[in-house]
Amino acid sequence: MQKLVECVPNFSEGRKVSVINKIAASAKKVSGVRVLDTEWDKSHNRSLVTIVGSPREVLSAAFEMIKIATKLIDMRKHKGEHPRIGATDVVPFIPISGITVKDCVVLSIKLAERIAKELRIPVYLYEAAAKRADRVNLADVRRGEYEGLSKEIGSNPDRKPDFGPNKMHPTAGAVVVGARKYLIAYNLNLDTKDVGIAKRIAAKIREKGGGLPGVKVLGFEVGGFAQVSMNLVDFEKTNFDEAFREVEKEAKKLNVGIRSSEIYGMIPLEALVRSVKKTFKAVDFNSDQVLEKRLYE
Amino acid sequence: MQKLVECVPNFSEGRKVSVINKIAASAKKVSGVRVLDTEWDKSHNRSLVTIVGSPREVLSAAFEMIKIATKLIDMRKHKGEHPRIGATDVVPFIPISGITVKDCVVLSIKLAERIAKELRIPVYLYEAAAKRADRVNLADVRRGEYEGLSKEIGSNPDRKPDFGPNKMHPTAGAVVVGARKYLIAYNLNLDTKDVGIAKRIAAKIREKGGGLPGVKVLGFEVGGFAQVSMNLVDFEKTNFDEAFREVEKEAKKLNVGIRSSEIYGMIPLEALVRSVKKTFKAVDFNSDQVLEKRLYE
Repeated sequence: MQKLVECVPNFSEGRKVSVINKIAASAKKVSGVRVLDTEWDKSHNRSLVTIVGSPREVLSAAFEMIKIATKLIDMRKHKGEHPRIGATDVVPFIPISGITVKDCVVLSIKLAERIAKELRIPVYLYEAAAKRADRVNLADVRRGEYEGLSKEIGSNPDRKPDFGPNKMHPTAGAVVVGARKYLIAYNLNLDTKDVGIAKRIAAKIREKGGGLPGVKVLGFEVGGFAQVSMNLVDFEKTNFDEAFREVEKEAKKLNVGIRSSEIYGMIPLEALVRSVKKTFKAVDFNSDQVLEKRLYE
Repeated sequence: MQKLVECVPNFSEGRKVSVINKIAASAKKVSGVRVLDTEWDKSHNRSLVTIVGSPREVLSAAFEMIKIATKLIDMRKHKGEHPRIGATDVVPFIPISGITVKDCVVLSIKLAERIAKELRIPVYLYEAAAKRADRVNLADVRRGEYEGLSKEIGSNPDRKPDFGPNKMHPTAGAVVVGARKYLIAYNLNLDTKDVGIAKRIAAKIREKGGGLPGVKVLGFEVGGFAQVSMNLVDFEKTNFDEAFREVEKEAKKLNVGIRSSEIYGMIPLEALVRSVKKTFKAVDFNSDQVLEKRLYE
């Protein structure tokens, strides 16, 4: 099975399209890397580039982008609504196929070492790559943002970076690098207008309330109907088909049905294959049987 | 959406691996064509090469293979258990994505014209490409095999080819070219040893008995358990998820459950996507949302 990893670096530039294009272009130059998406938001003054490929090439492309962003973005002048601590703000590695989160932690560390050594930028590791419990959550690492961290780094031992100098890079600030699982955004539209029912179901199935592992969920009203809106942060534990069945079961108890469901954004083939395997008891089914998969191997 | 077509030419050589390799190699030379599989059987004395790619390139690669097979295989000396009428025996085009069976009929005709003109081999069109009702079934086109057709062609108007000379090619015989939908082989293992139950369910759901459209099905005993074994010849009409639910429903009436199911061989991504869309009411879901699909576009 070909090893595939996704990387979605976030940059503190959402207004100058020429800068964003230069950053994305540097990833495209690395052969074997596919740039799947480039997005930016003016009010956030932030952009993100989604790349996919083999681990070695994705690592290399991520570094090239960070190098260009370091040259072109000056944090001393940066203003935007979204929290950030650096020109390259955060760089998550996400396993897609044939690779684990642990492998992505190794990639994070390799990238952190390169950033520290070649670009002289302080690096913090977060999520699965975190070396300290207080750095698992991105919000904790970014506390105080660029301005606040600039004051604390070097003096507060809790803000000492995991790699690189114990002071901000003059223009690029600091970087957060890490690894996490693929997140599937999945919404279920109920056949009721009563948003209270969506909220009750959400309370029942969310991981924090003792529900399904890896499920973050809220009840909303969307287009006049109640919606159970989920982030499945670990589809190997709870995939969309399992979430569907659980919500359907809870809804039934309240005499409500499911009108439709919505897989939002991209989904890895592996999640589809797992859903088919489980739902139809296709015990030996695997993604190598999917014809299109053979085309990029 | 990228247009993808599959082609699986069958050649009357299953013993000389060097010949089979030369045929497959000629397809590999065509850029943009992927050779997914090469199989052969000694007792059938027959091989088949599975290629996938864009319509233009697959057409070109199919022709290259046929040209080589015409040079290297002599039907006057050919012996094998499997019915055949030529060095290249049959060439089906199968839509995978972004392309219809009608488009594949057009490809069949283009290939037939080239074979007739450049190689001077008589060509019969079959299945969806058939121009006559008595040529829809491959068995009818191949009646009498190479030896029988050699005697009838030129004199029996029912055996007049659709393209090319009204006589056999001296060494390569004749070719059958056509278009058909992708066939999904799908088995359901019941939790009973009573093969009679599998046969009863088969009788109920097969298309011929007024059951599900595009479903060919038999009841078997496999490994001591009853199995409902299906060929889904048109997954846009009846996909594996629908077949599963229907068999499950019929089995339940007989107090029997489904132990497991088995998708045999390759399956197009589109079939997976359709099963998810239907089973989980994911009305807007489409294959462009599958991350891996983006990698070969």
